[in-house]
Amino acid sequence: MQSQSSPLGEFDLIQRFFKTQSEAMLSANPGSVSLGIGDDCALLKTEPHENMAVTSDMLVAGRHFFEDANPEWLGWKALAVNLSDLAAMGAKPLGFTLALALPNADPSWLGAFSRGLFAIANQYACPLIGGDTTAGPLNICITAFGSIPKEKAIRRSGALEDDDIWVSGTVGDARLTLAALRHELELSKSDLKVIEARMHQPTPRIELGIALREIANAALDISDGLLGDLRHILNQSNKDAEVFLDRLPKSATLLKQSVAIQNQYAACGGDDYELCFTAPASQREAITKISASLNLPLTRVGNIKPMQSSHPEISLVNQSGITLSPKESFVLLQSFDHFA
Amino acid sequence: MQSQSSPLGEFDLIQRFFKTQSEAMLSANPGSVSLGIGDDCALLKTEPHENMAVTSDMLVAGRHFFEDANPEWLGWKALAVNLSDLAAMGAKPLGFTLALALPNADPSWLGAFSRGLFAIANQYACPLIGGDTTAGPLNICITAFGSIPKEKAIRRSGALEDDDIWVSGTVGDARLTLAALRHELELSKSDLKVIEARMHQPTPRIELGIALREIANAALDISDGLLGDLRHILNQSNKDAEVFLDRLPKSATLLKQSVAIQNQYAACGGDDYELCFTAPASQREAITKISASLNLPLTRVGNIKPMQSSHPEISLVNQSGITLSPKESFVLLQSFDHFA
Repeated sequence: MQSQSSPLGEFDLIQRFFKTQSEAMLSANPGSVSLGIGDDCALLKTEPHENMAVTSDMLVAGRHFFEDANPEWLGWKALAVNLSDLAAMGAKPLGFTLALALPNADPSWLGAFSRGLFAIANQYACPLIGGDTTAGPLNICITAFGSIPKEKAIRRSGALEDDDIWVSGTVGDARLTLAALRHELELSKSDLKVIEARMHQPTPRIELGIALREIANAALDISDGLLGDLRHILNQSNKDAEVFLDRLPKSATLLKQSVAIQNQYAACGGDDYELCFTAPASQREAITKISASLNLPLTRVGNIKPMQSSHPEISLVNQSGITLSPKESFVLLQSFDHFA
Repeated sequence: MQSQSSPLGEFDLIQRFFKTQSEAMLSANPGSVSLGIGDDCALLKTEPHENMAVTSDMLVAGRHFFEDANPEWLGWKALAVNLSDLAAMGAKPLGFTLALALPNADPSWLGAFSRGLFAIANQYACPLIGGDTTAGPLNICITAFGSIPKEKAIRRSGALEDDDIWVSGTVGDARLTLAALRHELELSKSDLKVIEARMHQPTPRIELGIALREIANAALDISDGLLGDLRHILNQSNKDAEVFLDRLPKSATLLKQSVAIQNQYAACGGDDYELCFTAPASQREAITKISASLNLPLTRVGNIKPMQSSHPEISLVNQSGITLSPKESFVLLQSFDHFA
């Protein structure tokens, strides 16, 4: 790590650039960072009553983002998806490492990337503590660290029978943006402008995760689509679930689309980075208070059920209150294999 | 992190494969790992009197290894270079995350990669705790975690005047292997066989780093070449150094080469992952004991000097005991810009 003598002389510029911003953050608020960029390792202080949460995500051009993606958005999103994983456990951000492969060292690209990266790093007080830069096909790998009181991490495996299933914010907007950018459907410029940040600059629900530590039985962040991600909770908790399609929280922009699109995108669209969590009915009032204090909608979309067969199943209830068969669910949601 | 529903179905296989090995390690010895692969984050326990050391390295095909590199060696080396960073601080390995971009999911490649990776992971009791897999140009990003008692980390900035400069093992063998593979020089098959592991399967000096916690004033691992890396210590410690070329520890294989090659490769060849450290003369006996107990040569190659000008300098002393001018050093070592 931290090699100041990387193969490209240009990369010294990059490192100095990231290093300056990192040092500015750390000198303003060292927090848990004993030692930042510049040695063989960074050093993090830990508290005796806490565990350290660790998450790592790799973003690749052409797969996770368009080759010509706005680098400022990219810098934001690369850290946001990791912070979202911390949020899903109830962890408080401590810092992150960045490993970056770049085809070339374009100062304007790097300036914009760094601007987006440090904008979100500062917003969540999560300093860059180390990393690596190299020449190569564009690849962004961030590993983020968070702290969480021992035994308080919100696991995927904790869902209990009769828990409510909750979703934060609205779901389906990132998928709607992608559809518009791919010309799968038409969206007015003003509508696109309203929702595109949902795809490019997702908001990690850090404060919500922390508030849910004593309240939620299970949680995760919605990166692959609500139903697909809910299935991870069910798999690890050995439970079934019932989800009410007409309760899925949708933005005003998504509500302008056909009901079929609304259902598909809200139920299966990825990249929203909202939290899906389960909690007993006794916590409804507490959750409503959290929603008000964070100014963030929290919506009950279904219930956890005992597992009926050898593997967890999701029953969808349609707008008419009718529980759909797996085949009907599949047809309704299309190209969606969670019911296959 | 930990997305079980990655875009390629094949990648589920990969994850299950890595996950099985990871779980086997953790069930045998959970150590500091509270939670491994499978949730939004991994959880590490930390001890109140310890800091956590963090390091991250990204290896890219065509830059850090040949496209057709033996995947078993690659799995070993990808973790080895990170463990070497932990060793350089005196940290004890706790675990690591792996983010892997692959052009395709070739089971034989993955099997061999995983074999090499878990061979070294097991040897140093450093379990895989999480990560990410995606399709993309081959890229291996490992972030490793270690523990170190508070205030005991061996920094690059701690070198003191009159410290001895020490080097572990031998240096220049990885560069000699590279030269042979690039046909820059001829090496017999038997000679190549003896030294090629030095390039492909470097040994992180974990035990040495831990033994040096109370002994060394400064340390780092030699990834870019002894003199280039020593310069990082000098820069951060604001010191000069004197290095005796004829004391550089060389393997029997390197000693068969011309003196010019010996000097160049031992002084400037990268990728050896030996430790370079400084310690006061009063520690010579203790260091000799460590060398014996680890069965690892530790060689005094020079001395730390007060800084004479506005920036740190390295004076080379040749085989005849004559201190070379910067220009003579440059000529002797060729294509080497540390004296430029």
